[in-house]
Amino acid sequence: MAKKKSDKVKPQLVKGFRDYAPAEQLAREQMLTRVKEAVELMGFLPLQTASLELAESLLGPHYTEDSLAELFGFRGPEEVDMALRYEFTLSLARYVASQPTLPLPFRRYQYGNVWRVDKPGPGRYREFMQFDIDIVGTNNLLADAEIIAAMVSTLEHLGIERFEVRYSNRRILNGLIEFAGIDEKTGPDVFRVIDKLEKQGHDAVVAELGPGRTDQSGDKIRGLQLSEEQIAQMERFLKIADNSQHNDDPLDRAGALLDGIEESQQGIGQLREIQGYLKAMDISLDKTSVDLTIVRGLGYYTGPVFETTLTDLPDFGSIFSGGRYDNLVERFLNQSVPAVGSSIGIDRLLAALLELKALNLRDCTSQVIVTVMDKERIADYLAILHELRSAGIASEVFSGNTKNLTKQIKYADKVGIPFAVIVGSDEFEAGQVTVKNLAAGREKAQQVDDREEWLKAEEIQETIPREQLVDYLQNRLR
Amino acid sequence: MAKKKSDKVKPQLVKGFRDYAPAEQLAREQMLTRVKEAVELMGFLPLQTASLELAESLLGPHYTEDSLAELFGFRGPEEVDMALRYEFTLSLARYVASQPTLPLPFRRYQYGNVWRVDKPGPGRYREFMQFDIDIVGTNNLLADAEIIAAMVSTLEHLGIERFEVRYSNRRILNGLIEFAGIDEKTGPDVFRVIDKLEKQGHDAVVAELGPGRTDQSGDKIRGLQLSEEQIAQMERFLKIADNSQHNDDPLDRAGALLDGIEESQQGIGQLREIQGYLKAMDISLDKTSVDLTIVRGLGYYTGPVFETTLTDLPDFGSIFSGGRYDNLVERFLNQSVPAVGSSIGIDRLLAALLELKALNLRDCTSQVIVTVMDKERIADYLAILHELRSAGIASEVFSGNTKNLTKQIKYADKVGIPFAVIVGSDEFEAGQVTVKNLAAGREKAQQVDDREEWLKAEEIQETIPREQLVDYLQNRLR
Repeated sequence: MAKKKSDKVKPQLVKGFRDYAPAEQLAREQMLTRVKEAVELMGFLPLQTASLELAESLLGPHYTEDSLAELFGFRGPEEVDMALRYEFTLSLARYVASQPTLPLPFRRYQYGNVWRVDKPGPGRYREFMQFDIDIVGTNNLLADAEIIAAMVSTLEHLGIERFEVRYSNRRILNGLIEFAGIDEKTGPDVFRVIDKLEKQGHDAVVAELGPGRTDQSGDKIRGLQLSEEQIAQMERFLKIADNSQHNDDPLDRAGALLDGIEESQQGIGQLREIQGYLKAMDISLDKTSVDLTIVRGLGYYTGPVFETTLTDLPDFGSIFSGGRYDNLVERFLNQSVPAVGSSIGIDRLLAALLELKALNLRDCTSQVIVTVMDKERIADYLAILHELRSAGIASEVFSGNTKNLTKQIKYADKVGIPFAVIVGSDEFEAGQVTVKNLAAGREKAQQVDDREEWLKAEEIQETIPREQLVDYLQNRLR
Repeated sequence: MAKKKSDKVKPQLVKGFRDYAPAEQLAREQMLTRVKEAVELMGFLPLQTASLELAESLLGPHYTEDSLAELFGFRGPEEVDMALRYEFTLSLARYVASQPTLPLPFRRYQYGNVWRVDKPGPGRYREFMQFDIDIVGTNNLLADAEIIAAMVSTLEHLGIERFEVRYSNRRILNGLIEFAGIDEKTGPDVFRVIDKLEKQGHDAVVAELGPGRTDQSGDKIRGLQLSEEQIAQMERFLKIADNSQHNDDPLDRAGALLDGIEESQQGIGQLREIQGYLKAMDISLDKTSVDLTIVRGLGYYTGPVFETTLTDLPDFGSIFSGGRYDNLVERFLNQSVPAVGSSIGIDRLLAALLELKALNLRDCTSQVIVTVMDKERIADYLAILHELRSAGIASEVFSGNTKNLTKQIKYADKVGIPFAVIVGSDEFEAGQVTVKNLAAGREKAQQVDDREEWLKAEEIQETIPREQLVDYLQNRLR
C-alpha cells in the first residue's frame, strides 16, 4: 500500500540538538578514554546518576512552573514534576545525601550528557557532554590541590602542551567587599561583574560597577551604582590583580593591599597551602598560577576557584573549571558536606583538540575491506575475512548488492578504510590476492584531478601469495 | 543562617530511575569496552544521536497527546512536542534519511540510554542502556549473517561460554498464515501469540489462538477465535517447529509442511543462505541454530529474526535480539531502505554476567592509598604519591581530616583499595616504608569476628626500604 505523501515525517532534529557522525564519535570516545585513564590513575571512581531528576532536586523546594520551563522539565508519569539534569553537581549532592554509609572523602568522576535550554548558536547545543571530577566530604585543601593536579595531568595525558590552570579564592573576594565598604548582599553582583574582566576589559567592568554602560549592540547594561570611593578601592584591587603588570607574587600584593582583612588573609593562606601541595606533587608550576581576577560565575562556590585556558586557543574560554562548594549538599541534609570539584565541557574541548590536531584521528574502524567479485566464491571471501579478524585486524566484507569492483572501492574510500583485498578468478587459481592501499590512493588523489582514476591505479596495489596476506597487512598497519 | 526544615529536599529519585554506584559502573564500563572491541573488529562504526527527538520522529505524524504521554514526552522550548528516545532504530532511520551522501551499507553501532514509561519492578527501570548494531542499506543476506556473527563474537569476547543464538524468518510465518487459511490482517496478532510459546507453553498458545484463557492471576485473556481447522494447521506447525522433539533439520521439516507456499519457501531458502555464510565465517554452529518458534514481538520486522539465550540463565530471556526491517526508513523517505540489526540490553546482560561471574571485577580504581600520619611531612607523602602515579600505579593520598591511622585504613578498606602505604617518623628516619596488604586482610577478616583487628594485624604488613616501594607494589599488583 503506497503511503500518502502527508504521512512522511521530515527527518530533522529538535532545535539545538545534534548527532555525532562516526568520525566525530570515534574522536570523542578516544578523548573520553584518555580522560578516564588520567583520573582513574588518581583514584577517582565512576558514578552514573539518573538523567532525569525530580524538579525539586534541581531547583529546590520552591520552584515554579516557569523555572521548570527554563530546564527541559515537565510533568511526567504519576503526575510528578521532573527535568533533565543541567549539570552533575546537584545529582552528586543528592547521591551523597542518600548514602549515609558512603566512605568519605568520596572521589568520584561522572561523564555524560547534560541539557540546557540556552539559545542555540554556532557550537552551542542544548545537549552536550560534561566530565566532572569532585572530592566530597573533606575541607582539607589537599583535596583542592588534588583537583588542580587532576586538571593538569588530564590535559597533559590528552597531549595538550600549552595550557594554564589559573586559580584564586572566593574568600579573598569576600574580604574585598568588606575592604571596599560594599554591602555584603551586593557581593554576588560585584563578583558577576568582575567575572567579565577577561571578556569585556577593565573599563567595561568599572562602568558596570558604577553608572552602567551601553554595549556594542546598543543595549543598556545597568550598573551597580557603587560610590566613587568604593569603585576606587575596587580599581586598586583590579590593578594589583593584573599579573601582566607585575613580576612579583600576586599573593604578596593581595596580602599587602588587603592588610587586616581577616577573610582575605585566610583566603591567601589557603592558596599558599595549595601551592605547597602542588609543588610537592611535582605539578609543573608553569602550568598553574594564581590569578586574582578569576571569579567563576556560579553562586555556590565558597573557596578556591579554578579555570583553564588553552594558550594557543584563548578564544575557547575556560575548558576545565571548578571550585570549592561547601554548602551544596545542605539542600538535602541538615548538615554541611564540604566538597571541591572541576568540570570539562567535553564537546568544547573536543573542538579545541581537533583544532590543535592533538588527536590521532581514525576515520573508521575497519582497516580492511574484502571485496566480493564472484558470488560463487563467497565462502572463500568469508574465509579470508575470518582469518583477518582472527588475527585482530578489524575488517569487513562488502555486504552491498553490487559485484562492481569500482563501486565497492568507492564505498571503502568514502568510509575511509585504508586497505582493500581483491581476489578475482585469476588470483584464486594462482593462490594469490591483490591488496590495494586506498590510504595511499587518497593522498595521491589530492594532487590529481581524477580521484576515481587514482583509486584504480596499479601503483597503489600489490599482488602477493594468499598465505602472506595477514603478515603483509600487519606490517603496514603497525 | 539556619535553614528551616521545610526548605530541605528529600534526596530521592524519580520512580523507576536509579544511580550506578562505582563498583557497578566499573563493571558496566568494562563490559561496554569489550562489546565495542568486538563490533569494531567487524567494522561497525559508532554513531551518537540526540537523546530527545521530535515527537513525530518517534510516533509518526498522527501522534496524540496520549501517545506522547506513553513516552517521556512533553511540549518543550519553542512549544515543540518532543520525547526521550525509547530505542535507537527510529533515530537511525531518521539519521540515514537525513544523510543522502552516507556511504551504504552503513554498519553502525550505538549505545546509550533509552527511556520507557513501563511499570517499574525488580530489575525493570525506566532508564536503561542499550547497545545496537545495524547494517543499513542492503538486502544482501550476508548482512544478516554478519549481524549473527557479531552477536556470537561479542558474547564470546565477553567471556560467556554457554549461549545460543536462535533464528527464524518472518517470511516463513507470513506463509504459515496463508497455509492455515487465516486472514492476512490477523497475522500480527497470531505472531504476538506464538511469541509467548517459550514463556507460556503450548497449551496457553493454542487457547489464545482459539477461545481465549484465564491466566494464573485470574485475568481473562481474549482469544483470536480462529476456527478449529485453522488451529489444527497452526498446531501442525508448532509440532514440527519444536526442535526438542526432532533430530533432523528444522528447515527440512518446514519445507515439507509448507510445501507450495511460496513466501515460506523463500524464507526457508534465505535461512539456508545465511547458514552457508555462517559456516564459511567459521561461526561455531553449535552456538547458532534455526528455531522456527522465534517471532520477536516488534511489528516492523520483515525477514530473519534473532534471539539469544544464556544456557545457564534461561530465565533472563533473550539478551541480544533483532531482525531484518526493510521498511522503517520509509517513515522519513519516499524510498525503501532495507536494514538488519540486533540489540543488547546492557543492564540485563550485566546482571547476567555478574551472576555468571564472567567479569573480572574491580571494587575501585586506586591500587594504593598513601596514609598521612604527620602533616608536617606532607611533602614527603606527596612525593611518594607522585612516584607511584608516575610508575602507572593508580593511587590516592588520604585527603580527609583525620590523622588517625585506623580511620584511614578503615576508609581504604571500605572503598576496596588493596594496599596502604604507611610512613611514621621511625620509618622516615630509617628510610623505610610499611606496606599493608588490605586485600589479604579482607580475605582473612571473613574468617574471624573482628575485621578491624585483622586490618591492624602485623602479618598482613611488611616494612621495606623506601626505594623498593614501586617494585614491591608492581610485583604484587601484576
